[in-house]
Formats: sequence, C-alpha cells, structure tokens
Amino acid sequence: MADDTKLSDEAISAGLAGLAGWEREGDAITKTYAFGAYMDGIAFVNGTAEAAETADHHPDMTVGYKRVTITLTTHSSGGISQKDLDLAAALESLA
Amino acid sequence: MADDTKLSDEAISAGLAGLAGWEREGDAITKTYAFGAYMDGIAFVNGTAEAAETADHHPDMTVGYKRVTITLTTHSSGGISQKDLDLAAALESLA
Repeated sequence: MADDTKLSDEAISAGLAGLAGWEREGDAITKTYAFGAYMDGIAFVNGTAEAAETADHHPDMTVGYKRVTITLTTHSSGGISQKDLDLAAALESLA
Repeated sequence: MADDTKLSDEAISAGLAGLAGWEREGDAITKTYAFGAYMDGIAFVNGTAEAAETADHHPDMTVGYKRVTITLTTHSSGGISQKDLDLAAALESLA
C-alpha cells in the first residue's frame, strides 16, 4: 500500500490514538498548538514548513496570536493517509 | 485620535484605495498573497511576524501551498483601525 492511500476509519482511529491532541475532522486531522510567546509559534511554523518540504506534503496552517492550528489531508486520495499520520508525528517532535 | 480607534466606513474605503488587493470583510481587511514557491510564502510569514511584533499588532495568517492569506482587525476597538491599514501597508513592502 502506497503511503498516500486513503486509510480506513479503523486505521485512522488507531493512528490518532498515538497522537495526543490530534482529532479527526471529516477527511482531515487537526490539532491546535498553544505557545507562551508569539515568536515561539512562528518558530513552530518554520519547523512545520521544513518538515512539510521534506515530506513533500503541505498542511494548512492557521496562525493566530500564540496559537497555530495544523490541518492535514491527502488531496490526491480524497481522505486521510499514512502521510498525514507520519507528518503529524513529526510535528509532535517539534512542538 | 489614537491609532487603534475604529475608523468610519469612509476612512476605511479611502485607506483601502491605496492598498492593491486588500478587501474589506466585515470588521476586518484581508488579502491573499500567492508565491512561486512554498518557502517564499513561509519567508513572507516570517516577515509578517516581525512586522507584527514591531507594531504589537498580530494578524491572522492562513498558510496553504504557495498561498498566504492575511486578515487584520483591531479587537480592542471592535473594528478596523489605522493600525490595520498601517500594517497592511507594511506587508505590501514585504511581498
């Protein structure tokens, strides 16, 4: 199975069980990270961008004041794939 | 008039006339910037963050693939203020 294959509901639930704070929203997974300082959130955006370029998989990011929301989906598969779970795991190691 | 005073509709329209691509959406002004490369958009996010810290006025940013949408409002005044127009002008010089 290619890593951008759409996963089953069961596989998504199993993957999210290991990703604290990540939730499913339809065909995407999302988490809002909170930071003590605005520029800490911006540093996280930069780390996320580097991880996204490495994975060639680019999340949507919404940047507010001391808050960054990440939303991941795999457009080519019309759902959530292993690429989404893998990038979420990579972001957990950054935050 | 303090620079965070809520502006009149006329003053907002006059201000936006000088800001190409910026539009009013209710109590905010917004523009979507497009970039030739993903990391160019991230560089713009960093420039925006620095300008935001300097102004102590923080926009909402939505970062997609090669696209960054900026939304500015002045929460303390419940509307659009000169601070929003000034930061929009500063971002125009970055993009």
